[in-house]
Amino acid sequence: MHFKISPELIDKIRLLVDAQNDKELELYLRDFHYADVAEILEELSLDHATYIIKLLDTETTADVLMELNEADREKILNNLSPKEIADELEEMDTDDAADILAEFTLQEQEEIIANIEDEEHKADIQELLGYNEDTAGGLMAKELIKVRETWTVAGCLREMRRQAEYVTRVHSIYVVDKDDKLIGRFSLKNLLTADPKTKISEIYIPRVDFVTVNTEGEEVAKIMQKYDLEALPVVDEIGRLVGRITIDDIVDFIKDEAEKDYQLAAGISNDVEADDSILKLSKARLPWLVLGLFGGLGSVYIMQGFDAALEHYPILFFFTPLIAAMAGNVGVQSSAIIVQGLANDLVKGSIFKRLVKELTLSFFNGAVLALLVFSFGFLVGQDINSSLAIAISLLTVIIIAALVGTFVPLVLHKRGIDPAIATGPFITTSNDILGIFLFFYISKIILGF
Amino acid sequence: MHFKISPELIDKIRLLVDAQNDKELELYLRDFHYADVAEILEELSLDHATYIIKLLDTETTADVLMELNEADREKILNNLSPKEIADELEEMDTDDAADILAEFTLQEQEEIIANIEDEEHKADIQELLGYNEDTAGGLMAKELIKVRETWTVAGCLREMRRQAEYVTRVHSIYVVDKDDKLIGRFSLKNLLTADPKTKISEIYIPRVDFVTVNTEGEEVAKIMQKYDLEALPVVDEIGRLVGRITIDDIVDFIKDEAEKDYQLAAGISNDVEADDSILKLSKARLPWLVLGLFGGLGSVYIMQGFDAALEHYPILFFFTPLIAAMAGNVGVQSSAIIVQGLANDLVKGSIFKRLVKELTLSFFNGAVLALLVFSFGFLVGQDINSSLAIAISLLTVIIIAALVGTFVPLVLHKRGIDPAIATGPFITTSNDILGIFLFFYISKIILGF
Repeated sequence: MHFKISPELIDKIRLLVDAQNDKELELYLRDFHYADVAEILEELSLDHATYIIKLLDTETTADVLMELNEADREKILNNLSPKEIADELEEMDTDDAADILAEFTLQEQEEIIANIEDEEHKADIQELLGYNEDTAGGLMAKELIKVRETWTVAGCLREMRRQAEYVTRVHSIYVVDKDDKLIGRFSLKNLLTADPKTKISEIYIPRVDFVTVNTEGEEVAKIMQKYDLEALPVVDEIGRLVGRITIDDIVDFIKDEAEKDYQLAAGISNDVEADDSILKLSKARLPWLVLGLFGGLGSVYIMQGFDAALEHYPILFFFTPLIAAMAGNVGVQSSAIIVQGLANDLVKGSIFKRLVKELTLSFFNGAVLALLVFSFGFLVGQDINSSLAIAISLLTVIIIAALVGTFVPLVLHKRGIDPAIATGPFITTSNDILGIFLFFYISKIILGF
Repeated sequence: MHFKISPELIDKIRLLVDAQNDKELELYLRDFHYADVAEILEELSLDHATYIIKLLDTETTADVLMELNEADREKILNNLSPKEIADELEEMDTDDAADILAEFTLQEQEEIIANIEDEEHKADIQELLGYNEDTAGGLMAKELIKVRETWTVAGCLREMRRQAEYVTRVHSIYVVDKDDKLIGRFSLKNLLTADPKTKISEIYIPRVDFVTVNTEGEEVAKIMQKYDLEALPVVDEIGRLVGRITIDDIVDFIKDEAEKDYQLAAGISNDVEADDSILKLSKARLPWLVLGLFGGLGSVYIMQGFDAALEHYPILFFFTPLIAAMAGNVGVQSSAIIVQGLANDLVKGSIFKRLVKELTLSFFNGAVLALLVFSFGFLVGQDINSSLAIAISLLTVIIIAALVGTFVPLVLHKRGIDPAIATGPFITTSNDILGIFLFFYISKIILGF
């Protein structure tokens, strides 16, 4: 039953646009969900997509625009006049409208806002533009349903019918006092099962979770997940109800955060996508590669210091990439586990206990790997002393790499720095250098070159 | 306003449990949200936690149990009798009850199920146990509100009040025909604004998104996100409404998937947490390290084949870890971008076009890095020919690594294998070997050793 885009479908729409057959085009597109229309537009040329946005009614296109990826949306909006953009914003929820506006320059914002006719909507959007986008204020919408505790259920129902027109999904109904301060909530279900003459003050639930406009987005996501909330009211500094965050915005937020961490672990800063420009992708990738390059030059320097080994123990140089790779791999594993644990508030107990655990674990893993590498040396008839030096230093390097991988994110976290930055190139590079140095240093002691 | 666990709080509860002061304990804990009680239990000893679970009413503890992490929940449940567990399951939503039961052996499941008194609840749970946990059937709950199209709004309201008792959150009301087949939906808001005498058939929305019991969880998550759904009905093979998936389950699903990908990229298979046992953590980490070790041994073998360079160009061996690290880093970057693009359906167009883009990008990045490494050689007075060989092979290695990093996940995806497995150790190791080989091979051609 689910929509699947096909080349035939795209061709058909292209033809209709080229023929300017507006009537049939409208009729045809009316059957698609707005999210599907967005998918279709992403496959069309900018001119074709703009044509369709101008053709369809703003109620539909406002939804379509929100579903488009940022790059395509930006291009299409640049093809519209301030008045046309304002018409789209009129149909959007306040949080979406503010998000879109934030992508324009201040001057463009003013021009567009001046064209919004609904004064209340305009004021709401302007208010939202003032908040930092990573806070509750930046995530919330102004659309919500609120009632007074002094009302009756019947009066509440009347008022709700009026307010509900602007609110797509009701979730909770919020109860405020005469100063607009949030004092409780109840659900549509509660309303349906109550006698019409009952006072709201008798049925509302006075315990209500909320955040303030300045609460960090990450904190909001944690609260909504922990308490399984589908909507969370937002209050200002003095407790007045000013907005509401819904779960769909948080789903997007969680996904974005997870993608950011994933990219950081892979050595990609900034939020980039496969379809971004080469320049944007380079800006996100090159700095990490340069870091890796300097790390590599560091290890060149270290190995030059041990060049006395070249004559009798060239085998050590053949094993250097193996040692570096193992140090990097172990470090990334250790740090990934800690980073994820920290994100989920799962890492409890002291840093010391954590290090002891990682020590035990890496000693076990390291011993297995050292044994393997020693057996390999034995099988291919390698000099026993060299094999022993390699195995012992491999074990040491693995243990140290694991401790570094555990310690660094924990320390970053304690200092308020995002520990996700520690997984990936940062840990790999430092463990590479440290591992190579330890490898040659220990080998030198054992083999005495 | 938000709950923050403190040592004093834990101490106070410990004392109350030790003193068996049930009355005060109950009074004290009553003020906490069940998610907070779960957090408290995770800090207590198993005996203390079990004591509290047995003390509080099952309506509360059923919620608390669901919020506990899996390891702690398992331990506490093992301290309860089949009858006590059955009492908890009676209070849970069917999907949660089935998830908990699935953690027991078949024989234990039977014992527990035999103790569930509500026959309908029992049958529902047994039905859910039959589905694969990664499908819509395994994700859905039986709790939902359904009405017949032939009813009036007033009749519907009556029936809904009855059904709503078992349904925590209503979301949509589903409309079925006389054969229980799903034909539409409407919202509580629609119900509130309709005349009581209206027939349901006049107000319901015949377009309704749904999935079948066998739809993959990943597909369900995509549909709910794309269409911004908070609940999604599930039908059986012949279209009968059998359950409903709510957004909170999907939030958990999305988080789990993101964490799995993140761990795979870091070389950790299985789903492990920082607090898991050393054995479990080793099982997830060691195989990838062994893979890395064999890769390293492969590069030992390659370098032995080029040992003629040792005499005149030992510098090449000092640069090998740098080359390997760059090949690994570039490969991980390229594959991460593709893996994420695939997960979000963002990677459009042909594989060929994608490879050409990555080629351009890596040529640019590689040229910058090659220039840096050549300048370094010049600054430290390195032999010009060696520097040139190193720079040229670095550029080549970076391009090849980027192509491998792009190509491998695309091919895996085409063959229906999770491309996430390609980021991390797999790509790093193969790029290490390939990079080292290319480095020596190109250097040999240029320097002629």
